Amino acid sequence: MNPLFHKSIYQTRRDKLMNSVSSGFALFLANDDASMNYPSNTFNYRQDSTFLYFFGLSIPNLAAIIDFDHKKTILFGDDFEIDDIIWMGDQPKVAELASQVGITEVLSLSALPDFIQQNKGRKLHYTPAYRGEKKITLAELTEIPVSKQKENASVELIKAIVAFREIKSEEEIAEIEKACAIGYDMFTTAMKMCKPGIKESDLAGLVEGIALSKGNGVSFPVILSQHGETLHNHNHHLTLEEGKLLLIDMGAENKMNYCSDNTRAIPVSGKFSPKQAEIYQIVLDANMAGISACKPGIPYREIHKLAVTVITQGLQKLGLMKGDIEKSVELGAHALFMPHGLGHQMGLDVHDMEDLGENYVGYGDSFERSSIFGWAYLRMAKTLQPGHVMTVEPGIYFIPHLIDIWKNENKFSEFINYDKVEEYRTFGGIRIEDDVLITETGHQVLGIPIPKTIVELESIIGIAK
Amino acid sequence: MNPLFHKSIYQTRRDKLMNSVSSGFALFLANDDASMNYPSNTFNYRQDSTFLYFFGLSIPNLAAIIDFDHKKTILFGDDFEIDDIIWMGDQPKVAELASQVGITEVLSLSALPDFIQQNKGRKLHYTPAYRGEKKITLAELTEIPVSKQKENASVELIKAIVAFREIKSEEEIAEIEKACAIGYDMFTTAMKMCKPGIKESDLAGLVEGIALSKGNGVSFPVILSQHGETLHNHNHHLTLEEGKLLLIDMGAENKMNYCSDNTRAIPVSGKFSPKQAEIYQIVLDANMAGISACKPGIPYREIHKLAVTVITQGLQKLGLMKGDIEKSVELGAHALFMPHGLGHQMGLDVHDMEDLGENYVGYGDSFERSSIFGWAYLRMAKTLQPGHVMTVEPGIYFIPHLIDIWKNENKFSEFINYDKVEEYRTFGGIRIEDDVLITETGHQVLGIPIPKTIVELESIIGIAK
Repeated sequence: MNPLFHKSIYQTRRDKLMNSVSSGFALFLANDDASMNYPSNTFNYRQDSTFLYFFGLSIPNLAAIIDFDHKKTILFGDDFEIDDIIWMGDQPKVAELASQVGITEVLSLSALPDFIQQNKGRKLHYTPAYRGEKKITLAELTEIPVSKQKENASVELIKAIVAFREIKSEEEIAEIEKACAIGYDMFTTAMKMCKPGIKESDLAGLVEGIALSKGNGVSFPVILSQHGETLHNHNHHLTLEEGKLLLIDMGAENKMNYCSDNTRAIPVSGKFSPKQAEIYQIVLDANMAGISACKPGIPYREIHKLAVTVITQGLQKLGLMKGDIEKSVELGAHALFMPHGLGHQMGLDVHDMEDLGENYVGYGDSFERSSIFGWAYLRMAKTLQPGHVMTVEPGIYFIPHLIDIWKNENKFSEFINYDKVEEYRTFGGIRIEDDVLITETGHQVLGIPIPKTIVELESIIGIAK
Repeated sequence: MNPLFHKSIYQTRRDKLMNSVSSGFALFLANDDASMNYPSNTFNYRQDSTFLYFFGLSIPNLAAIIDFDHKKTILFGDDFEIDDIIWMGDQPKVAELASQVGITEVLSLSALPDFIQQNKGRKLHYTPAYRGEKKITLAELTEIPVSKQKENASVELIKAIVAFREIKSEEEIAEIEKACAIGYDMFTTAMKMCKPGIKESDLAGLVEGIALSKGNGVSFPVILSQHGETLHNHNHHLTLEEGKLLLIDMGAENKMNYCSDNTRAIPVSGKFSPKQAEIYQIVLDANMAGISACKPGIPYREIHKLAVTVITQGLQKLGLMKGDIEKSVELGAHALFMPHGLGHQMGLDVHDMEDLGENYVGYGDSFERSSIFGWAYLRMAKTLQPGHVMTVEPGIYFIPHLIDIWKNENKFSEFINYDKVEEYRTFGGIRIEDDVLITETGHQVLGIPIPKTIVELESIIGIAK
């Protein structure tokens, strides 16, 4: 069995939800086992995060109803039979599991369709399904076809869940710290082992092994590439080369499925070249400025603006950019170098609650997403509150394909020195990412500090040689 | 890009299929990326094995048609756009990929529904979908609802695919050998690191890391447990204890997605107790007898029978079983100790082609599956042919729950000494598994020999101490 918080925590969460949704009932489906290449050959099990939040149990073949009118919770599940026990070992009874998370009413899975039939006419709330199997189950249970499920998902339920889950409790912060501790091991191991001649895949496998040994595996597919300019590069087929930068963006899930997410960019040879060090320092300045500015009451969009302003200033100093800084930032000229947003919320998901809709999580009712390239990719604009956990992850990238397109269009030529940019065409990319808790008075960087300054990095890279 | 065989190999495979199915056309859908906890957070990509066999390309968002009447293949896919390139890097054009596997006709994915509409009335062949997303796509494309898809899958197509895929070519054997080489690294590393006090999860993460570093990850979830009596035990939460046996059943996928699958049971302390050694030797005898008997022309059910006969004889010698051996085996008394079958075919899937239906793969038209407990779990009964790759994996387990049920029923009391069995209640389980190629003249065990005899094992366990 997975570790659990005390049952009162789950009871309180459900009670709060019961008082936040006006009427009807909500259906929560546990994630199924997901098949790789035939039905019984499955990926490492990952429970749905909202299911974990309210019901704690990290096993498939469960469903739950929270009834807002009758103020009650029902867990649906079936006990193991002898064949299951031979193949998969003994399991606690569903009633026992339910009791561990404070649920007293348990029914067989076969009772779920009946429940929904008998309650036809009442408002049925659900969140959007992101796995095919669940879409099919949802269609069978509710008669809402797959193509109509997203538009019929309950906005009221989604908003209530986001409001609770985005404010992390003390217990949750402690779990995120555990995930960060695994992440620290992964990063420092990769840094120590990094040297010319070994393969990216050697390091990628090594760190993924640590994540599996210590927790529930990686919180997202490992990005570990000398082509750091490709933002979500999951290829690890290159051999590490003297003089190149290696970008590592990775995180762990601890045993309770809380996440970490950090990025470092390191010189393969152990020493930054002067050119690398200059760009690195700009990204580090943006990272530090962003973190320093985190506090309750400030919209995260302002922190993003601050960070890209620092980047624009730095790139101007190097002669890569020019012109009016405020205007340059507002129009998104920096997006040639940093097309993505500064960060996102993190918790039970590494992009927390992204399945519920990024705009509900990062924008809410008070903010609207920009349509300007670069700004549009910002996942979080909302005003920060104590209990928010944010990533702060500025970067500078030289993306040949994007440079060519902009240059051909002569785009933002008042802000960008394309001739100078050409000198960096094969530079790669740098991103520096930390996980930040918003506190009552400001912020706190989570986890054991992973080497980050140039001096710190140069003293750890390759020391396992 | 994934490594590929020469395009003529894929062309030949498709040509053979074109001449094996009478009429109509077959639809093949590439596997989608599978979501963990929100849409864009995906598991390690795994292509469908039949898609790999005929089309080689290990990327999502592709489909293919093989038209049996017009003797042609069409690949459907869309080229990357600039946003994809920023996030995921540049990709070869679909036409280029197609050409690498000998396909000249390429259409956009949006042309696929049109193709199927325009060919309504012609026989549409497909294999059963095992992922939810694919079931939904299949329903959209063919108007066959999810609940009717399995019964409408093409038996003619399935039988043709099984007939080709079950006979491994030289190139395929070479790839399986590469997977076995990764498996060898995984086993010997785990054996060397095995010692009391470390956690099962430490070893499980370590070996999974090796599989990811050297290939495409594990071929199935690692089984690494001191509770070896639970056949598919995926819990790794226990600490290794002096005196216990550790059962490790695992395999790797190489970069072309060919699999390995081996099992060893090792004493945590480095030395078998006399009691452990006695049971171990019986399983080893069964494993060796099974392997020795592998040759073309013999039904694999006979090999299973031979192995369980060796086990029955051994358990009789120890006083755990008794009575007429032939009758004992026929009725399945041994299934208290070895409830599962001796092995299965292996190739691009570790249980090869299990998605197509286990009976098509392992029984065909000439054999019928037994309904007797134990015998019923045998995945393969068919007559062996050169090119078959089989696992041979006998085991002896003491499953307390099963012992209690049988004992209470006094089941097979003429064959089982329940009093003696009680002395082994906490023994655990032993399984020894190798991968065997059937050759023209007999058989060949694939891979570098993983330590297997008691002497070999006792000289490697814990030497990394």
